[in-house]
Amino acid sequence: MPEKIILHWLNFSRSHRILWLLEELNVDYELKLYQRTKEFRAPKELNKVHPLGKSPVIEIVAADGTSKVIAESGHITNYLIRKYDTEGRLVPSSDDDKEKAEWFLHYVEGTLQPLLVSLLVGETAKQMAPFGTKFLVNKVVKAMNDGFYLSELLKNLDYLESIAKAQHAKGSEYLVGDKLNGADILASFPIQQNVFSNPERAQSIFGRSDVYKKYPHLHQWAQFIAKEPKYVKANQIIEKLEGKSKL
Amino acid sequence: MPEKIILHWLNFSRSHRILWLLEELNVDYELKLYQRTKEFRAPKELNKVHPLGKSPVIEIVAADGTSKVIAESGHITNYLIRKYDTEGRLVPSSDDDKEKAEWFLHYVEGTLQPLLVSLLVGETAKQMAPFGTKFLVNKVVKAMNDGFYLSELLKNLDYLESIAKAQHAKGSEYLVGDKLNGADILASFPIQQNVFSNPERAQSIFGRSDVYKKYPHLHQWAQFIAKEPKYVKANQIIEKLEGKSKL
Repeated sequence: MPEKIILHWLNFSRSHRILWLLEELNVDYELKLYQRTKEFRAPKELNKVHPLGKSPVIEIVAADGTSKVIAESGHITNYLIRKYDTEGRLVPSSDDDKEKAEWFLHYVEGTLQPLLVSLLVGETAKQMAPFGTKFLVNKVVKAMNDGFYLSELLKNLDYLESIAKAQHAKGSEYLVGDKLNGADILASFPIQQNVFSNPERAQSIFGRSDVYKKYPHLHQWAQFIAKEPKYVKANQIIEKLEGKSKL
Repeated sequence: MPEKIILHWLNFSRSHRILWLLEELNVDYELKLYQRTKEFRAPKELNKVHPLGKSPVIEIVAADGTSKVIAESGHITNYLIRKYDTEGRLVPSSDDDKEKAEWFLHYVEGTLQPLLVSLLVGETAKQMAPFGTKFLVNKVVKAMNDGFYLSELLKNLDYLESIAKAQHAKGSEYLVGDKLNGADILASFPIQQNVFSNPERAQSIFGRSDVYKKYPHLHQWAQFIAKEPKYVKANQIIEKLEGKSKL
């Protein structure tokens, strides 16, 4: 029996791009689906897979039945590409681009994603504010967002726009080099799914709707990524199993 | 002229462990010091080094004078070890341990550190609350901490305690394998500096002072790390240049 890969997938989470990655790698895998609770948290069943109870988590079950669990999106991406991308399809062409892609795996999770998580925590606090306190809770959350989370996110989007612009000037539709790699796959959740394919969420994050005009190159990248055949296929797999609204 | 490494160091930041790493690697480097503003933010000068204006950032100046700037602590750690640890002093002994150390570099920055940053943002919001609103701001921040940031941090410390405990049972003082590596160096800032060497900050994070009793193995690890000769040397370098209070 060859080894088996299991992906623990959670709706509206960073796990979706690992599904995309597994499709890109053309490997056999098993998909286990989890649904968020009413409070938009991961369900307790995920604690049985990994003590931190988060998704994505993958399990690699070896031929002898022993299994190991691997967490952290950037690390999972690295691990899967190194082990299963035997033809180097997702490996950038030059050493310089390899280094940039490696940086992206750390950057997306270490800098970009935490800002979006904190903005979401703030939104949740606003929604949960008891009657009569909403106005003040909104004000406290706005102060934290303006003072840190949102101002940092805008700085990051400016930076990413400059990267996408430079790539387009070179004739590339990708974030690094001239082919698809881990950088695009990892960035798809925070940028494409959270901001550019979700006008309602973009409006709630930025309090304005001109974000697509402000970041035309990032928008172009997001539209391009959304049409990548294996990403489309990952979406179809989930739609078939779950229905579109559960993505 | 051989290539030159410049470390842009900011007081009370993740950059301190990169200084430690450079000392471990026994390489020549230049240190540029930056001080936080009154609002505890990075100063504007750092924007000139990297568009995101954060620290740590390293600059590698090649023999021909061209330079490249590298950000993200996990990526910097990987880069420096791969390029300058020619004797493999900081490289774990087995493939399994190499994988665990690599996971740690992603985990510390992608999961652990963002929780501490958000707790700090909450503290800042409390301190900046205008007269008359303090009570309510405290309440909003407490709700967000109890509901997410603090409960997640405690879950992470439980998990790290179990890792340190298993390592101690094997007779190792390190977080991965049987020798110092990037995992210990990267974890030193969020765990050792933020929690175990800073009772005042631990008290403000946890609202209780028994954190050292609750996490005896992590505490033992933190005390061990604090005595690592090159870490002590990194502290001495800064004390000499800046005075102890500026660390």
